[in-house]
Amino acid sequence: MNTTLKLIIAMLASSILLACSNDSNRASKAAPTHDDQIDLIIMGDHIVSMDDAATIIEAGAVAIDDGLILAVGPAAEINAAYSAIEKLSGEGMVVMPGLVNGHSHAAMTLLRGLADDLALMDWLNDYIFPSEVQFVDAEFVRIGTELACWEMIRGGTTTFVDMYYYPDTVAEVVESCGMRALVSATVIDQRSPDAENADDSIRKGVDFIARWKDRNSRITPIFGPHANYTLSASQLQAVRSAANEHGVGVSIHMSESPFELQYSKDTFGMTSVEMSESIGFFDGPTIAAHMVWPSDKEILILAERQVGVIHNPTSNMKIASGISPVAKMLDAGVLVGLGTDGTASNNDLDMWEEMRLASFLQKVDRMDATVLPAATVLKMATSGGAAAIGLGDTIGSIEAGKRADIIQVAFSDVHHVPTYDVISHLVYVTDEQDVASVVVDGKILMKDGEILSIDTARVANEARALAAEIQSASQERNR
Amino acid sequence: MNTTLKLIIAMLASSILLACSNDSNRASKAAPTHDDQIDLIIMGDHIVSMDDAATIIEAGAVAIDDGLILAVGPAAEINAAYSAIEKLSGEGMVVMPGLVNGHSHAAMTLLRGLADDLALMDWLNDYIFPSEVQFVDAEFVRIGTELACWEMIRGGTTTFVDMYYYPDTVAEVVESCGMRALVSATVIDQRSPDAENADDSIRKGVDFIARWKDRNSRITPIFGPHANYTLSASQLQAVRSAANEHGVGVSIHMSESPFELQYSKDTFGMTSVEMSESIGFFDGPTIAAHMVWPSDKEILILAERQVGVIHNPTSNMKIASGISPVAKMLDAGVLVGLGTDGTASNNDLDMWEEMRLASFLQKVDRMDATVLPAATVLKMATSGGAAAIGLGDTIGSIEAGKRADIIQVAFSDVHHVPTYDVISHLVYVTDEQDVASVVVDGKILMKDGEILSIDTARVANEARALAAEIQSASQERNR
Repeated sequence: MNTTLKLIIAMLASSILLACSNDSNRASKAAPTHDDQIDLIIMGDHIVSMDDAATIIEAGAVAIDDGLILAVGPAAEINAAYSAIEKLSGEGMVVMPGLVNGHSHAAMTLLRGLADDLALMDWLNDYIFPSEVQFVDAEFVRIGTELACWEMIRGGTTTFVDMYYYPDTVAEVVESCGMRALVSATVIDQRSPDAENADDSIRKGVDFIARWKDRNSRITPIFGPHANYTLSASQLQAVRSAANEHGVGVSIHMSESPFELQYSKDTFGMTSVEMSESIGFFDGPTIAAHMVWPSDKEILILAERQVGVIHNPTSNMKIASGISPVAKMLDAGVLVGLGTDGTASNNDLDMWEEMRLASFLQKVDRMDATVLPAATVLKMATSGGAAAIGLGDTIGSIEAGKRADIIQVAFSDVHHVPTYDVISHLVYVTDEQDVASVVVDGKILMKDGEILSIDTARVANEARALAAEIQSASQERNR
Repeated sequence: MNTTLKLIIAMLASSILLACSNDSNRASKAAPTHDDQIDLIIMGDHIVSMDDAATIIEAGAVAIDDGLILAVGPAAEINAAYSAIEKLSGEGMVVMPGLVNGHSHAAMTLLRGLADDLALMDWLNDYIFPSEVQFVDAEFVRIGTELACWEMIRGGTTTFVDMYYYPDTVAEVVESCGMRALVSATVIDQRSPDAENADDSIRKGVDFIARWKDRNSRITPIFGPHANYTLSASQLQAVRSAANEHGVGVSIHMSESPFELQYSKDTFGMTSVEMSESIGFFDGPTIAAHMVWPSDKEILILAERQVGVIHNPTSNMKIASGISPVAKMLDAGVLVGLGTDGTASNNDLDMWEEMRLASFLQKVDRMDATVLPAATVLKMATSGGAAAIGLGDTIGSIEAGKRADIIQVAFSDVHHVPTYDVISHLVYVTDEQDVASVVVDGKILMKDGEILSIDTARVANEARALAAEIQSASQERNR
C-alpha cells in the first residue's frame, strides 16, 4: 500500500467519522494515525469483499476502528500499517460481510415447530394466531427476539429486518445484543397483541419511531404495514404518509400467495404491486417481502420505484406460496435480497440455506442450471440485500468507509475439503455452524463460536419454560 | 418390562444370532443372558424408532450385542435388564436409525465445487469428464471415498449406495471405516477409468462380485449399469442376467433428465421405465436413482415391480433435471428413498438437507403444504430408504432383531430451542453438525463428534494435495 493510498483512506475514514460525530453511540475519537492503536484487525486466508468488482484478497486483513472499516488489503500490509488492540487470526478462515436477513419475525422462534405441514389457513387459525393471542406480550417478544438474535449471530447474520409486535422490546434486544436491525412497528387492521386496530397501531408506531429515530445508529425504526389484504387502501396511504412525515421507510408483505393475488384482484381490481403504485404507496423507501407472483408489468414497476424485494425461498416452499421469478426480477434491475421469514414457517434462521434454496429453486423452475449462480445469491445475502433494505452505502461489503459488519467462516469442516472455489463453498456447502466469529459495527459479538453479547443459558431456559406453557395450551386447544 | 417379554426378546435375539452364525464377520457368541455383559447400550431423551407404528420412546435405551439390537425400551428397564461394556449417555440426545443415502458417487467429493452453475453438458464435458479421465485411479477412489465416508459418518449416514469406479477400493474403504454400503461395479459402454467398454466392465464386475459376495455382511456388491442412454438394450439385459446369475441386485440412473426422456423416446420408441420393463430389466432387485420424469403408467410399473426409487432433490434442482413426482409415487406404493447424488452436483453429502428439500420442493410443486410431511421424509431417509435398497429387514428402524445402525443427535444447539415436536426438528432444523455419535453394526464409528474409524487428518491432507493437482490441470484445460 503506497503512502498516497494510505492518506486517502485515512482522510476518508476521518471525514466519515466526522460526519457521524453526532451519533450518541460512538465515542468521538480522532481518526487513527499510523502510531495509534486501532480497535481491531480481522485476518483471513481469503477476504471476500463483495465490493462491485467482487474482489477477493488472499491472505488479507481488515483494519477497523470506531466501528468503521479503515482499510482492507493484504495482511502483511495491513499489519505493517496498523497496530490493533485485538486481532482475529485468519488461519483457515474466510472473511466476508455479515449476512443480511431482509425479512423475519424474530420472536416467532418461540413457535418454531409448533405445527408444520398444514394448509396455510389451518396452520394460522388453529395454531399460530391462537398461540399469539394468548401468549404474545412484551416478555414473549423479548425472549423470542433474544433467542433469534442468538441464532442469527451464531449463523453469521449481522443485520435483520423485523416485523412483529412490541417493537420497543425488539429494538431494546437489538441494542443490547449488538446486532444491526430495521425494526418495524407492525400496522394491521385488527386487534393485535399490541394495538386495537390500524389507527391505533399507526399512532403507537409514530411514538416508537420518535423514540428510536436517532437513538442508535445500528437500529432503524420503520413502519411494517402487514399486507394489502389486512389493510385498506386509505390505511396503506396513511402509513406511507406517516412514514414520510417521520423520514422512515416501510416493510410489507406483498404478492406472497395465490390467495393474496385473488383477494387483490377481487377487492381492488388489480394486483398488489399495481394497486400499491396506484395509491402512491411506493412514494418512499419500501421493502416488499416474498413477491412470489409479480407480473412482468409489476416487475418493471418494482425496478423503476427501486422497491427492495426480499425473497424467502424456504417459507415460500414450505407453506406452498409459490416460486418467485427472482432471475427475471434481477435481470430487470430490481433490488433483491434474501430472508428467512419467521421460524414458524422455516423453521430456522439459516441464511446459508436460503442462499442454496434460492439458487436451486430458480434453476429447477427455469430448467436452467446457469441461473442464480453462487456469486449472485451471495450478493443477495450481502451487498444486494443491504441495498434492498436501504443500507447499501453503510454495510454489505468490506470496503474502507463502510461500517464493520464482518464475519469469519472456518473452512475446516470435512465438507470444505477440498476447496476449489471459495464462493462455491460459501453458497453450496457452508452451514451456520461453520461461522467462527461475528463482528457488528466493529464489536465482536461471537468469537470462536462463543456468543459474547447474549446470556445464552438464561435465554434457553426462559424460552423452554415459555414453550412448555405454549405447548400445553396448544394441546388443550386442539384436543 | 415383564419376564415374558424379556424372554421373547432373548429368544428372538438368540434365534437371529443363530441364523446369522455363518457370517464370517461376526464372532459366534451365545446370546447374552441377564448376567452377561452386552456390548453397548445407547440412551436418549427420545428414541425415534421408525418402526411401523412410528413408536417414540421417551427416556429410552437400546441394548446391543454382536451388532444386533437386542431390545429397545424405557432406559430404566433396559438398564435393569442388561449390563453393557459401553454406554452412550442420553442427556439431550435423540436416538434414531442411521440415515440411508440411496444414491451417491462417493469419490466425487474430490471434485466438489470444481465447477458449478453450468449447463449439464458443459459441466460434464469441460470439467467433470476430463478431470475423471486424467485423475481417476484406485488411489483417487480410495482418498475420495474415505473423505466421503468421513463426511457421511459425521452427518449420521450409516449406509450408502455407491456407483463409481474401482469398486474393490470402495469396498475396502467401507470395510475399513465400518459403514454399511451397496457397492456397484459400474457398467457403461465407453472407455471408463477402470474398463474398456460394457463387456469389459461386466466381466470385471462379475469378478468383483465374486470377491465380495460373502466377505462382509456390511458390504453388498451389486451391478451399476449407468443408464439406458449409455447402454444398449442388450447390454442392459446382459447386466441383469449376470446380476441374477450371481444373486445380486442393480442400481441405475433412470428417467433423470429431459435429455434422457427424449433420447429414450427417439431410440427405443418409449420412455426409460417402459423400455426397462419391456426387456425384463426389472426381473430382479433394482434401485433406480432420480426418477424425475415417470408417467402415471410408469409409476404403476415401478410400484408393481417393487423398484426402489431414490429421490435426489438437491442434484435434481442444482443441475436443473426437474421435479420428481414423489408424492404421487408414494401414493401409488412405490418404495422411495433419498440420496445425495455425488458431491460434484450437490455439493455435500448432507441427508438432512435432502429431507428438507424433498419436503419443500414437493410442497411448492404441488402447491400443497400438507404433502411430504416431516414424518414421511424422515421415513424416506431411514426405514423407507432401507426398504428401497433391499435392506428393509436388516436396518432402517430401531427394533429388536435388526442390525444396530443407530445415531445420537444432540438437541442442544440454539436451533433446537424450543422443541415441540422431535420429528419436526429432525427434518426442518437439524444439521449434520448436530449428530453426536454414530454406531454401525454395533460398532461406534463416531463418539461425541470424534470420528474413530478414519484417520481424518491424513485423509484431509491427501485430498487437498490431489485437489491441487486437479485444479491446476483444470485451469490449464479451460484457460
